[in-house]
Amino acid sequence: MDTQAMKSMPVGVVGLGLMGSSIVVALLASGHRVVALAPIAGEKEEASRHIANLFRHADATGMLTQGIASCIERLHLAEDYRQLADCRLVMECVIEDKQIKGAVYEQIAEAVAPDTIIASNTSAIPISELQALVPHPERFLGVHWAEPAYITRFLEVTCGKETDPSVGRFMVSLGEAWGKEPTLILKDIRGFITNRLMYAIYREALTLVEHGHTTLADADKAFRYDAGAWVTMMGIFERIAVEGGTDRLSVLKRLFPRLSNREDVPEMMRQMVAQGAKGIHNLRGLYPYTDASAKRWEAAFAQFNKAIYELASRYNTKDTAAVEEVNVSQAK
Amino acid sequence: MDTQAMKSMPVGVVGLGLMGSSIVVALLASGHRVVALAPIAGEKEEASRHIANLFRHADATGMLTQGIASCIERLHLAEDYRQLADCRLVMECVIEDKQIKGAVYEQIAEAVAPDTIIASNTSAIPISELQALVPHPERFLGVHWAEPAYITRFLEVTCGKETDPSVGRFMVSLGEAWGKEPTLILKDIRGFITNRLMYAIYREALTLVEHGHTTLADADKAFRYDAGAWVTMMGIFERIAVEGGTDRLSVLKRLFPRLSNREDVPEMMRQMVAQGAKGIHNLRGLYPYTDASAKRWEAAFAQFNKAIYELASRYNTKDTAAVEEVNVSQAK
Repeated sequence: MDTQAMKSMPVGVVGLGLMGSSIVVALLASGHRVVALAPIAGEKEEASRHIANLFRHADATGMLTQGIASCIERLHLAEDYRQLADCRLVMECVIEDKQIKGAVYEQIAEAVAPDTIIASNTSAIPISELQALVPHPERFLGVHWAEPAYITRFLEVTCGKETDPSVGRFMVSLGEAWGKEPTLILKDIRGFITNRLMYAIYREALTLVEHGHTTLADADKAFRYDAGAWVTMMGIFERIAVEGGTDRLSVLKRLFPRLSNREDVPEMMRQMVAQGAKGIHNLRGLYPYTDASAKRWEAAFAQFNKAIYELASRYNTKDTAAVEEVNVSQAK
Repeated sequence: MDTQAMKSMPVGVVGLGLMGSSIVVALLASGHRVVALAPIAGEKEEASRHIANLFRHADATGMLTQGIASCIERLHLAEDYRQLADCRLVMECVIEDKQIKGAVYEQIAEAVAPDTIIASNTSAIPISELQALVPHPERFLGVHWAEPAYITRFLEVTCGKETDPSVGRFMVSLGEAWGKEPTLILKDIRGFITNRLMYAIYREALTLVEHGHTTLADADKAFRYDAGAWVTMMGIFERIAVEGGTDRLSVLKRLFPRLSNREDVPEMMRQMVAQGAKGIHNLRGLYPYTDASAKRWEAAFAQFNKAIYELASRYNTKDTAAVEEVNVSQAK
C-alpha cells in the first residue's frame, strides 16, 4: 500500500487518554478520516471535550490547514470495536499494561481485515513481547509519538522480532507524509532510543542530587541552558561535529568509569510516585506548584510548542542539507 | 566586592583559543574592560582576527548594546602577564592539561593582587585538583562557559574543596549580572553537572549504535525531535512535571538495570579521535562533511544562536515565574 492509498482510509485510534486524543487530532490534521475508539464506558464524553480543546490549540498553532470543521467531519467517535472494520491502520494508545493491551488487541483483530497494521504507542513495553498477543505479528509494530502529537515531529517506529521490516519502512514513509521525522528500529530493545537516553540522564542527575553535588533546580538549569541552546537544531553527535572538540576521548576515559551505574530506584522518584504526583496536573511532584503557576506553565508551554515548531522548521535537515546522512555500516 | 565594583575593574582572560576569544567578547559585551592575554607567541594576531569576527556576529545578534567601537576601546590585547596587574578576576582558558594550567597559574599569581579571583573554564579537570596549583586556593574556582559565550546563558560555577563558598556565590551574582543563568556546585565532582549528563547520553547512545539497535543519525534525530521540542523551555525534571506521567517508576525499575554501564571507549569515538577529526572544522568526524556543507552548518548555527536566545528569553524562569525553586534540603 502506498501512503496516498493509506491517506484515503480511516485510521483507528483505540484509547482516548491524553496521548490518544492528541494522536487523533494529529491524524485528522494530516487529512485522515479517524475512528476514535473509547474502550472504557463513559470515556467518550470526556474525550470529546478534550479533543475539542486540542482542536482549538492545534488551530491556533496553524496545524489545522483544513480547518476545524473539516476535522470534525472526518472524526468518528465510537465505543464499539466493530466500527474499526474499514481501518487499515489502528493505533493502540491504552495504558502500559500488557494484559490490558492483549485484551484490546484481541478485540481489534476480530474487527479488522487481516492485512491491517496494528501499532502500539507504548514507550515502555518491548514490541517483541506485545506482538506475541496478536494473530498477525508481522504487521504489528511500535509507533511512539510525543505530546502534543499534532505539533511535535518526533516519531519512533520500532519493529519487533516478528515484524516484517517492510511494514516498518512503510510506517516511516507514512510518518514522513504526516510531517514527522521518524526513526526506525529494526532490532527491538526495551525503552527504544529516546527513553533509554532520557533515563540515562535521570540516573546520572538523580544520583548527583542525592549525593549533594547539585539540586534538582540546578540540574534542570544546566541541561536547559546547555542542551537547550542547540538541540532544536542538532543531535548530540552533530553537536560534537560543530564543537570540534578533540579532548573528548580523555574526558570519556575518565568519566565513563565514574558515571552512575545504579539499578535501584532513587528515593526522590520513589516518593514522587508514592504521592501520586502528576506535576502541574495535580500540583504535586518534584517541584511545588500552585494552581496559578500550573496554569501559567500550561499556557506558556502551549505557546512555546508553536514557537519551537516554527524555529525547528527553519533548520530542517532537508532544507539546510548540511549533513549527508551516513549509514552506520558505512561509518564503521 | 559587589558586582558593580567588579564591573568597573578589568577582567583578565588568559588563553585566546575559540573559547577564550568568545569569553573575551562576552565580558566586553557585559561592559567590562578586558585584558586578553595570548600566552603563546604568535597567538595574539590570530586571536585579534578571530575576535573581530566574533564582534560582527555578536553585533548582528544584538548582544553588543554598546556597539563594537566601545568594545574595542575596552579591549587590551596583551602578551605579558604583568598587564593583568589591575584585574580582580582572571579567567583561565588554556588547554585541558594540568601541567600547562599550573604554569599559567604561577604566572597569573605573580602578576595580580592576592585578593584576585582566578577561575578556570575547564570542563574536564576537577577544581579541587587545580586549586592545589595556586597560592590562594580559597579564591580559585571553576567557571565553565558554553560557546558562543556572548549569547549562551549557560554558566557552571564550581567550588573545589578549598574554595571559599562566598566566592562561589559572588561568582553566581556576577554571572547573573552578565545575563547568565548560573548553577553553583559547592561540592566538586569530576565533569560537574552538564558533562556528566552529556556523557551519560553518549555512553548509552554509542552502545545502542554499536549493538545495531539504531544509527548515529537516528539517535541524533530522536534526541533532537524529542528533547529539542521542550528543553529550551524546561529542564528534565520540569518536563516530568508537565508530562505528569505516573508510569515512570515501573519504566525506571526495568530500564536502569539495562542501561549501559560500560567503562571502555566505544570504537567510533576512538576512531574519531585517532583521525584527528574536528567535524565541520576539518571536514572529518562521525558524519561526512564537505567544505560547502560545513560552511552551511556554521552559518546556520550562527543564525540559530540568535533565534534560540530570543525564544528562550520569552520563557525565562523569572518572567513566567511558573515554578518556585525548591532547595534540595527542603525536597528531602
